[in-house]
Parts: sequence; structure tokens; C-alpha cells
Amino acid sequence: MTGKITALNLVQAELGEATKAYFAKCEEKLGLVPNVLLAYAFDEKKLRAFTDMYNELMLGDSGLSKLEREMIAVVVSSINHCYYCLTAHGAAVRQLSGEPALGEMMVMNFRAAELSARQRAMLEFAVKLTEEADRAALREAGFCDCDIWDIASTAAFFNMSNRVAAAVDMRPNAEYHAMAR
Amino acid sequence: MTGKITALNLVQAELGEATKAYFAKCEEKLGLVPNVLLAYAFDEKKLRAFTDMYNELMLGDSGLSKLEREMIAVVVSSINHCYYCLTAHGAAVRQLSGEPALGEMMVMNFRAAELSARQRAMLEFAVKLTEEADRAALREAGFCDCDIWDIASTAAFFNMSNRVAAAVDMRPNAEYHAMAR
Amino acid sequence: MTGKITALNLVQAELGEATKAYFAKCEEKLGLVPNVLLAYAFDEKKLRAFTDMYNELMLGDSGLSKLEREMIAVVVSSINHCYYCLTAHGAAVRQLSGEPALGEMMVMNFRAAELSARQRAMLEFAVKLTEEADRAALREAGFCDCDIWDIASTAAFFNMSNRVAAAVDMRPNAEYHAMAR
Amino acid sequence: MTGKITALNLVQAELGEATKAYFAKCEEKLGLVPNVLLAYAFDEKKLRAFTDMYNELMLGDSGLSKLEREMIAVVVSSINHCYYCLTAHGAAVRQLSGEPALGEMMVMNFRAAELSARQRAMLEFAVKLTEEADRAALREAGFCDCDIWDIASTAAFFNMSNRVAAAVDMRPNAEYHAMAR
Amino acid sequence: MTGKITALNLVQAELGEATKAYFAKCEEKLGLVPNVLLAYAFDEKKLRAFTDMYNELMLGDSGLSKLEREMIAVVVSSINHCYYCLTAHGAAVRQLSGEPALGEMMVMNFRAAELSARQRAMLEFAVKLTEEADRAALREAGFCDCDIWDIASTAAFFNMSNRVAAAVDMRPNAEYHAMAR
Amino acid sequence: MTGKITALNLVQAELGEATKAYFAKCEEKLGLVPNVLLAYAFDEKKLRAFTDMYNELMLGDSGLSKLEREMIAVVVSSINHCYYCLTAHGAAVRQLSGEPALGEMMVMNFRAAELSARQRAMLEFAVKLTEEADRAALREAGFCDCDIWDIASTAAFFNMSNRVAAAVDMRPNAEYHAMAR
Repeated sequence: MTGKITALNLVQAELGEATKAYFAKCEEKLGLVPNVLLAYAFDEKKLRAFTDMYNELMLGDSGLSKLEREMIAVVVSSINHCYYCLTAHGAAVRQLSGEPALGEMMVMNFRAAELSARQRAMLEFAVKLTEEADRAALREAGFCDCDIWDIASTAAFFNMSNRVAAAVDMRPNAEYHAMAR
Repeated sequence: MTGKITALNLVQAELGEATKAYFAKCEEKLGLVPNVLLAYAFDEKKLRAFTDMYNELMLGDSGLSKLEREMIAVVVSSINHCYYCLTAHGAAVRQLSGEPALGEMMVMNFRAAELSARQRAMLEFAVKLTEEADRAALREAGFCDCDIWDIASTAAFFNMSNRVAAAVDMRPNAEYHAMAR
Repeated sequence: MTGKITALNLVQAELGEATKAYFAKCEEKLGLVPNVLLAYAFDEKKLRAFTDMYNELMLGDSGLSKLEREMIAVVVSSINHCYYCLTAHGAAVRQLSGEPALGEMMVMNFRAAELSARQRAMLEFAVKLTEEADRAALREAGFCDCDIWDIASTAAFFNMSNRVAAAVDMRPNAEYHAMAR
Repeated sequence: MTGKITALNLVQAELGEATKAYFAKCEEKLGLVPNVLLAYAFDEKKLRAFTDMYNELMLGDSGLSKLEREMIAVVVSSINHCYYCLTAHGAAVRQLSGEPALGEMMVMNFRAAELSARQRAMLEFAVKLTEEADRAALREAGFCDCDIWDIASTAAFFNMSNRVAAAVDMRPNAEYHAMAR
Repeated sequence: MTGKITALNLVQAELGEATKAYFAKCEEKLGLVPNVLLAYAFDEKKLRAFTDMYNELMLGDSGLSKLEREMIAVVVSSINHCYYCLTAHGAAVRQLSGEPALGEMMVMNFRAAELSARQRAMLEFAVKLTEEADRAALREAGFCDCDIWDIASTAAFFNMSNRVAAAVDMRPNAEYHAMAR
Repeated sequence: MTGKITALNLVQAELGEATKAYFAKCEEKLGLVPNVLLAYAFDEKKLRAFTDMYNELMLGDSGLSKLEREMIAVVVSSINHCYYCLTAHGAAVRQLSGEPALGEMMVMNFRAAELSARQRAMLEFAVKLTEEADRAALREAGFCDCDIWDIASTAAFFNMSNRVAAAVDMRPNAEYHAMAR
């Protein structure tokens, strides 16, 4: 918890009990408290708003597996060149898939990976998620409308958090680099 | 509450008491329930995660005025050509400022507006919010680091919600067009 | 006729009789003299060259309705973020169509509008009017070659006048904002 | 006057006396009737609107020399990859300057040419003629406001005529290639 | 051999016998020593590495004709606005084809040329030679895999040499301009 | 040497003695024969032309260290999303620097790394190596003209080899992923 984690000078508030417990759980499960949480911790209301949305989106019930949601996270972050998210979520893809090279390909160029038609459609949609986003292609690939919502929300969420990370120059925890190689 | 509000077919769940109360409050204050809320209402957990974050960001304590946060919302939405957000938040800028033309300029080209150096710096930052985002320029314009966080978060949030709106083809409530002209 | 209408300092010449009559007619019909005409009025030869071309293109005989030509004008101006043209021709679309929301959608994102296949083809053509412009798509949508000429000329004309307006920072008449809402 | 000069099938009208005389004058002076004029000749009103504006802009009184206006024409056309305008106006730059390589450089990359500070400012302005066009740089380079108008108008005009040429696939007269090499 | 050929100050080494002989052969065949060779001549090892690769690629055995390889060179250089390569290889296309206008069109906009389906596929591939390069389109156009390798290598080579030329501001030999018009 | 290393079907020729020795040396030093060499091995003349240029550029005498040249290679490959080069040269940066995170940052976003002014100037130059490449910035950062040549050549070389790799879908050796983590 030492070291500069963003380029902003924000005074860390005294943490409440709920936050302390949450951070302890992170340490236990991941071996670290992700810097993105420490970055938001200067204001516990902002921290909670972020984590509630994050947890709902990335860990909640969904027709998409957790790995698929992490793949979207990395591919969107690759477009936005987000060093923090590429490091942290690249590690998650390596870990959840058990395939280090899959993590690399999501970071470098997801089109280099051998993917199912379903996953390719999902990632192409995430890439061109704009006013012309091709919902029809997702339906043809077999996604239901709830899944389409989740794909769109996940890709959109990382369009948000990539930009927060870039704006404040958020630095990834060093532990991520070695994880699951 | 009739009419198609997104391009997806999502079955609206029975609303809980808290949500019903929240929607009633919207009706009372705005004269409508914003379609973005109805769109998320197929799953109350998603709805709450979104509104908690939205309310904290757009209505919570901040060194930025509510109008300034709405200006960021419209300028980011203009880059992303988001019909929903331009309509709804363009109306908010017109209403909060009492200057219809200011709302138009945020939608069309914010550089056409006569703004303070502070607001110009804030909006230029929102526009180029990328890995090279120019925090120094914001500091020179007199923003403190908490304000920088809020500018970045607001611009980033609309990079998320523009994309959700586009992906599901969310339609603005018709009432917005006539509002505060 | 007070107020700064462009960012350049051009000495307005004494107006000839024909120009005075033309401006009086504008006042009578529109309730204002469009600033683009006042901007060109520093040199009556330039003014006439511009208005002759403009009137031929936008008001002359054509297989395209006046509304369709105004729609092209707004869509091209949206790509170029031209505050003057979006304001003035956005008002024209609202007025000619009697549908305020149609004007908004042309300004914000024409793909959000429900259009006939013919009008969609026409506007998509205007958008990608480049060396690869897809004439075939226009023919399939039922346009004759004279119509194609008019679509191309109108889109091209606003590629010219958007840039003049931007280069000199031409300001729209305030009256446009309230018009036909 | 044989051969296809555009990709559209437009029936050439019987030419009026004034047009015939104008074309005869072209033949006498240039050794050809530029295809752009033949292209517009299917409708003499459109032809006149175009040539009146063109002649005022490119041949009328101006603080810019005819060569300078042709240089703008070629540089704008280079950005738009307009085969017709690059061929015809590239020939004009070669002819008016007496320096074939100057014409080539305008076509290929004007930054490769050794130009005065004035001409470099003029061409850079033409290149980035957008809402952010840098009028101040032109003033520093010694241009008066009338000159700035002419630079903007000329660059804008070719943003129009490049697109007409592209949309209809206008072909340059073969004679241009060998001219003034 | 007088005159500045790049923007860098590199001391020309004493040339070895092999290089002198090579340059003499250039003079005899082309009437000039291409400046790109003089530019590399400050270090004979670099010169040889470049020319060996160049000669293998552009003059070696291939299913592509020398003219086709020069066409690729010019089209890639047109995308990169490389004044040196457009001048030198534009001259080569004029010379090898005996059609000056073909050289012009490769420089200005190759899509303006009437080409065989094979050559069109080849040049479109060269243009979008990215991670999504469409090998299938080349196969459909009848190219074997060795030809595809050569097309890719030639387009890639000029993506390299365009950038060297740009970085050092390499100037074309004046003789090229008049050649084969 | 089993497995598909490109998307093309090129018949591998019988290797000559020199090539066999070269590949044996690779195995000994690196523990693998880089697939880029196997890819070129269908034609030994092409292979030699490539390796001669590569070795001169990346391993020859230079004012730039081998690590610096590898950093350029990765940064250019990051712009071009080249999976092969990011994998192979990312491994080289990790190995030569002894800093795994430095390799990651070159792949993900080199601006996230703490670099000397010299190296930052070098990499920014490589990124915008276009007709406007800023040689002056390199001179200010203390590079001599020979170094500028090497920076330009290395960045340009990878603009070539990234495209060859993409065009033929060259796959990295699996060994690279685990190397020097």
C-alpha cells in the first residue's frame, strides 16, 4: 500500500469497517488490494458506487462466463491502450483460462487467437461498440438479449474505467505481472 | 411507459417498492421517467448499480457545479454521437443554465461557446481524455485534484453510458425535445 | 445587423440596390437576414457568386424535395461540426418537415431517425462522399442520374460552406434557435 | 468532346450561345474545354452558377496571386485524392510557376517544397481548415483579412468540387498530363 | 553528386570498389545514381543490406511483373505521402508501362485507373495490408501463395523505405521528373 | 519445426549448408529457431536478404544499444498490433533489460514507463515517423545524425516486418511467452 498509485494528490480518508473488511478479503483471495480500489478509496461513496457496479457486471449472474467478461475487458482496454487494465485483466484472463498465451493475444491482437464463432462475435461487437454496433451479428451467434445487454455493458464499463485510469495515471499492482504466467 | 425504448427484447420484471417510489419521484420532479431507467429496469440489481453510480457522480458533492457536469456529459456524448444522451442532457444544460443556445452549442460544437478559461480547460480535457490527458492544463486552470477526479469520472461515465445507449438503441423520452427551449 | 458575425475584420461595402432588395426580401420571408449573407456582403461579387450557386442548388428545380436537400445540408454539417450551418439548416429541417425531433436527429445522429430507404441511401451517400462514393446504392434506391448529381452537389456545397463558416467563425442569427421548435 | 467524362448518364442539353462562346474561348486559350465544364453542361443554370463562383474565386481580384490560389487547389485536392483536380490544377501550377517540380510536390507532399513562410502558412491553413483553423497563424504570416477570406474560400471551394468530381467520377482531359512538363 | 540529398549530416565514407562499380552501372543504365543509394552510402554495410533486399524483391524472380511491383511501390508511397518514392517509382511506372497517365493515377488515386481484376485485388491488398489483410481476395483473383508473399513483401518494403525517406527528408534526383513523360 | 507458422502454403526448399548452420546457431543461443526465419526459408535468397538487413540493423555497430533497438521494435509493433513481433521482441526487451514490466509497458503503452528523456524522444520519434517526423527533437535529446539514421531505420524496418507478419499470419514460437518473465 506504499508507492504512488495515481498521478493525483488525493488525501486518503480513514477507512470505514466495511471497506477494511472488503480490502482484507481482496488480500486473502488475490494476494493484493487492486490499486483501482485504493485509488477510489479517498471517498468511500465513490468507491462503493464503483465496486457495486463492477461486481454486478463482472461477477453477477450472466449468460456470459466470467472469463468471457474478462476477455471483453482486455480487448476494450487494448483499443484504449490502458496500461492498468491490460495488466490487471490480462492477468485475470491468464488465470481464469489457464492459458497464458490467450491472455497475451487479448492484449496484443485478439484476432490472432483461435476462438469460437460465439466469442469472436462477442469481441468484434465490443470493438465496434458505437452507434452502428451490429446487434444482429450477436443474435446470429446465438446470444440472447440479456447476454447482449451484458456484452454491451461490460464493454461500455471498460470504456469508462480505462478513461478514469488514464486520466489519473493509475499504476497496476506489481504482483499482476508475474501472476499466472 | 408504452412504446419501444431499446432495440432489445428484455422482459420487464415486476418492480419492487423502492423502484416504484424512485420512478414516482422522477415523474413528480421531471414530468417523466427517463428511458434510461426504464431500460435498466429489467433487472433491479443492474438498475441500482447504475443509478447509485450516476447519482453519486452527477448529483453528489463536488467542486464542479451540476451544470458543469452536465456540460461534460453533452460534450462527451457529442463525440460519440449518442442520440439519447444528447437529447436528455442537452435539455438539462438548457434548463440548468437558462440559456437554450448554450445547450445547442454543447451539442453542436462546444468551441463555438464563450466559456471561462476554467470551463474551456474542463471540456477540452473531457474531449481528449486518453492516456495523454493533460492534467497539467486542468491544474493551471485552477482545479484541485478532487475536481480533476470528478471531471475524469464524469467524462468516463458518459463514455460508458453512451455506448450502452448506442448498443441497445435507447430512445429518448419525447418530452425532452420541448423542454427548456 | 449589429454584433460580430465572423472573426474577420472585413469592411462592409455600401450595398447596391439589388442587394438591399434581396436583404429586405429575406427580412420579410424569414424575419432575419441570414448572417452568411451579411458575411459575404463585404464584396458584392462574392456575395452574388455564392447566392446564385446556393439558390440554384437548394431552391432550383430538382428531383429532390427542398426538405431532402436541407437534410443533406445538416448531415454534412454534422460531420464537420459546423455550428452556423447546424443551427440555420437544423431550423430549416424542423420548419419544412413540421417535426422538431427530425431536425434534432439530423443534427445529433441521422441514423437514429426512421427514414425511407430512399432517404437513408441519400444520406449515407452524402456521408461517405469520397472517391469511393457508392453511386450504385443510390441507383438501387431509385434515384435517377440527375438526382445523383443534385445529391452530390448539395453535399459537396456544404463541404465548402461549412469550411468557410469555420474558417471565419461565422455566428448564426439568434432567431434560429427558437424557430419551429 | 467524345468519350465518357463522368460515371453518370446525363443528357447534354442544346448549348446556348453564351455557353458556346465560352467553350470556344477555352479551346482558344487552353487548347481544350475542361471536362468539369462539359460535366456541368447538362444544365446551363448549374454550369453558370459553378463557373461564376469559380471565376470570381480563382481569377477575380485578390491579395493572393493566381498561382497561390492554384497551389491551394492542388493541396486540398491531394488530401481528397481527387484525380481530376490533381491533374488539371497540377498542370496549372506547373504552367503558372514555370517549375514542373513545384507542381509535383503540391500533388505528392507540399511540405517537401521550399516555400516562403507566407505560402507555408497559407497551405497549412488550407490543410487543417476545420473549426480549429488557425487564423492567428495567417495574420502572423502577414495576410490581411480579405486574403484570409480568399484562402478559406478557395480551400473550401475545392472541398466542394473535389467531392463533385469524385461522386460522378469525372475524368480529366488527356491533354493535361503532357502540359507544361 | 553535389547538393543536399537528406536532412541529416552524415559523412560519406570512401567508397569501396564494388560500390563504385555498382554506382557506375546505375549511371550507365538510368543516367543517374538514385539518391536513396547515395543516402545509404555513408555506411557500405547498410547500403549493401538495403540493396540486396531491394534487388531481390523488386528485380528477382517472381510471379509478379516488374511493373506490378512498381505499381505496389507507388500506391503504398501514395498512402505515406513519400515525395522521394512517388517521384522515383512514379517515373518507373511511366517507363515500364509506356503510359504516363498510368503513373499519374498510381500517384494520385489508383482507383481512377482501369485495371484488371488481378491488379485491382493486388493493389487493394497492398493498401489495407494490416492484420486484417484479405488473403482470400488475392487467392480468388488467381494469385498463388508465392505471389501473395511477394505482394506482401513489396508493400511492406515500401512501408519501410517510405519511412526512412521521410525521416531523413530524402530528395529525389531531379532527372526523375522529366523521365518518360 | 512442426505446426503451421504462416497462413500461406509455401513449399519449404531443401536448406543449404549455410542456412542449416545458421538455424543450429539459433537453437543453441535462443533455444529455438524464430518462426520468422522458418517463414522466409521457402526461398533462401529471400531469407538471406532479410537476415542480412535484420542483423545489420539490430545487431550491428550503432550508437543505440541493442535494448534500445528492441524497444523501438516493440513500440512500432504495438501501433501495428503485430502479434508475432510483440511476442518475440517483447521477450527480447524483458531479457535484455532484466525488467519484465518494461517489456509489458512497451507492448501495452510505452508512455506508462519511466524513461530517460533520450529514450522518450527516441520512442516518440518512432511513433510519429511520418513526413513530419521531428528530427529536431531527437537532436535536442542528444542523438547524433548516425543515431537518427538508426532510429529511423529500425522503426521503418518494423513497419515492414510487421506487415509481412500480418499478411501471412505469422505465428510466434510458443517458447517466447514464458521467456524472461
